[in-house]
Amino acid sequence: MGDRWTLLVLRELFYGQTRFEQFVGVLSIPRTTLADRLDKLVGAGIVTREVYQREPTRHEYVLTEKGRDFFPVMAAINAWGDKWAVDDAGVPVVLTHTTCGAQMEPVVVCSECHEPVSADDLKASIGPGYPEHLRERRAVAARFSEADVDGR
Amino acid sequence: MGDRWTLLVLRELFYGQTRFEQFVGVLSIPRTTLADRLDKLVGAGIVTREVYQREPTRHEYVLTEKGRDFFPVMAAINAWGDKWAVDDAGVPVVLTHTTCGAQMEPVVVCSECHEPVSADDLKASIGPGYPEHLRERRAVAARFSEADVDGR
Repeated sequence: MGDRWTLLVLRELFYGQTRFEQFVGVLSIPRTTLADRLDKLVGAGIVTREVYQREPTRHEYVLTEKGRDFFPVMAAINAWGDKWAVDDAGVPVVLTHTTCGAQMEPVVVCSECHEPVSADDLKASIGPGYPEHLRERRAVAARFSEADVDGR
Repeated sequence: MGDRWTLLVLRELFYGQTRFEQFVGVLSIPRTTLADRLDKLVGAGIVTREVYQREPTRHEYVLTEKGRDFFPVMAAINAWGDKWAVDDAGVPVVLTHTTCGAQMEPVVVCSECHEPVSADDLKASIGPGYPEHLRERRAVAARFSEADVDGR
């Protein structure tokens, strides 16, 4: 997903910003950098460029389904930043969950038991799509030595 | 958090790898790049460098609490990749939640109502720590114009 600017642009898209000039105004991002990052996001299928005005033609940038699905990543980065990168002034942005009305923080839970998950509670195993040419490497075999191969 | 290599090194740390040579073996990362990224992670307080052997001195790299707290971000990136960047072969890595024993996927839920959260259900408001010098910008004001300032 690339660099810091890409993440900042994505964050603005999630906050509902869609226009080149809005990104420039909020982020103070150099115009050439912004154009480059938007091109990359469009190329990756994360953002689409849509015409919202003709004569002169103007575009806006909208998250695709693939892009909207990136939201949990942004939410997790936000929560991490709120805990570790915030000074005494408090959090820069507050999130409200509109369906329940509460100020909230994103929490990662297990899809099966619905309890919060931490790194200590997870075991990674080689899945069916693990690249064949990496599977045979000694370092890879060692990494998963205590795991069930193929997740069985 | 930086670039692709940084995220790959972090992923290995979450999978329990701790040693320079292990990272090289699994990732095929150039040694100078790896040294640089580990230095940056140490500098950011995400990783500590600890001696595990003397004569010759050898170090291992261990996630700090700040680093371990980054786990939800990694989990969310994994889930996104499994959905959007996987071919017919299937997922490369399977996660097992050791406390419940199930193969699982990370799900982001609201801390208050515990329901899954998507970008459509969130409203961002200016928090108490929003930088003063940005607060007065017209673009910023417009961005939050429909939100409650200070999250009230």
